[in-house]
Amino acid sequence: MEKINSLQNAHVKAWKKLQTKKGRKQQEQYLLDGWHLVNEAVKAKVAIKTLLITAKQLETKPDLTKFPAVIEISEEVASHISATVTPQGVFAVIVLSEREDDLTQLDLSRPWLLLDNVQDPGNIGTMVRTADAAGFAGVAFGTGTVDIHQPKVERSMQGSQFHLQLINTDLNVMIDQLQAANAPVYGSELNPQAAQYLDIDAPASFGLIMGNEGNGMSRELLARTDKNIYIPIKGRAESLNVAIAAGILMFGLYH
Amino acid sequence: MEKINSLQNAHVKAWKKLQTKKGRKQQEQYLLDGWHLVNEAVKAKVAIKTLLITAKQLETKPDLTKFPAVIEISEEVASHISATVTPQGVFAVIVLSEREDDLTQLDLSRPWLLLDNVQDPGNIGTMVRTADAAGFAGVAFGTGTVDIHQPKVERSMQGSQFHLQLINTDLNVMIDQLQAANAPVYGSELNPQAAQYLDIDAPASFGLIMGNEGNGMSRELLARTDKNIYIPIKGRAESLNVAIAAGILMFGLYH
Repeated sequence: MEKINSLQNAHVKAWKKLQTKKGRKQQEQYLLDGWHLVNEAVKAKVAIKTLLITAKQLETKPDLTKFPAVIEISEEVASHISATVTPQGVFAVIVLSEREDDLTQLDLSRPWLLLDNVQDPGNIGTMVRTADAAGFAGVAFGTGTVDIHQPKVERSMQGSQFHLQLINTDLNVMIDQLQAANAPVYGSELNPQAAQYLDIDAPASFGLIMGNEGNGMSRELLARTDKNIYIPIKGRAESLNVAIAAGILMFGLYH
Repeated sequence: MEKINSLQNAHVKAWKKLQTKKGRKQQEQYLLDGWHLVNEAVKAKVAIKTLLITAKQLETKPDLTKFPAVIEISEEVASHISATVTPQGVFAVIVLSEREDDLTQLDLSRPWLLLDNVQDPGNIGTMVRTADAAGFAGVAFGTGTVDIHQPKVERSMQGSQFHLQLINTDLNVMIDQLQAANAPVYGSELNPQAAQYLDIDAPASFGLIMGNEGNGMSRELLARTDKNIYIPIKGRAESLNVAIAAGILMFGLYH
């Protein structure tokens, strides 16, 4: 089994670059960090190109030494390529799927969550996990939204990335698709024409757009929605966290 | 105006200790960090014992130099006493309110959120903010739940701490109070007797208990609830984030 201990190793330098969107795009692969995500990928039958593991973790899974695509890495390498402060010491290198950019094979029989310029990785991951729990078909990451494979996004999706379809797209194209399939697209923005979410009788399939944490949805997309919906605020909070609002709307519209 | 530049100053040492629960209890005061929270405290007419401000921030609010309870602090002191990486340079020292331990004057005409051993400060802050938006009367921090005035909890409450009642209590005492007022107490735990939240016709006032992120609610409290409710999971997510679940339940039960 190959062993890599040096931070100067060319592979290590390449893996480190997978923390950036540019690096992932250039190498056409990304990294999963930690047992939970690696196990979820195995469960979902996602092909693992290379498994990187420290000696300490390898002790717990001695069978892994038999596989050709396993590389033993030092704790130092693990710390270097991880985006976490205390990595577990196991990583999977996964080839980027072309399906993420393919809008011709979407399941439009169930709802979609559309993320318009959402910036916080924790919010994004939580929304994907909630969309999974709500039974949505998928989540569309609009241009400007933090990348699907950003390490913190990956981590906070907690395995839900393997349970529903995730795509990168200009949301205009996604709106075209939904509307062509007679699925209404709902914006989440408080304006005089907006309807209270509890008054909406949503069909089996629809699109729900969540906007940027500070600025909300873009004007361009807002102009294309079939309806805008809002959550009535009873107390004195100025707003809801975007992931909380998404959770209330997804479960409120689709049950 | 008094100026404090040294980390060896006794006041600085005391302020630093306000980051810990022990320090807050001993000094019977806590710290608000940043303009947003300080302004929210002023808006809510919360008495500020001392305002600490850097020269840079003082320039933006020259009128403050007139007040006796303002101390100018160096950037180094600001960094030292702040729990954030890049503090804004303004802090308010607030005396702990006795109301936080007083269960004799609760508004029991509206719902309460009860936190049972919740550990993540961000989750707690978000739940308080959501309870505010949902029009709840207050949030009870049960024994074992992270402290109301823990710096990250304060920050993520985003001002909602001044909009509804927050109390520290053994949740058994809170349950006694609610049940004595004919307000049912709902547990959030999936068990064979649990009811789907959409099937619950909640009255104007009730208690909703959210449990620990990993282990859920304690057995002891579960035995005392009037009903247990759950959110049906349609997809393959193992669970919902506790703050998301709380948001769905608060808005689902009370509207």
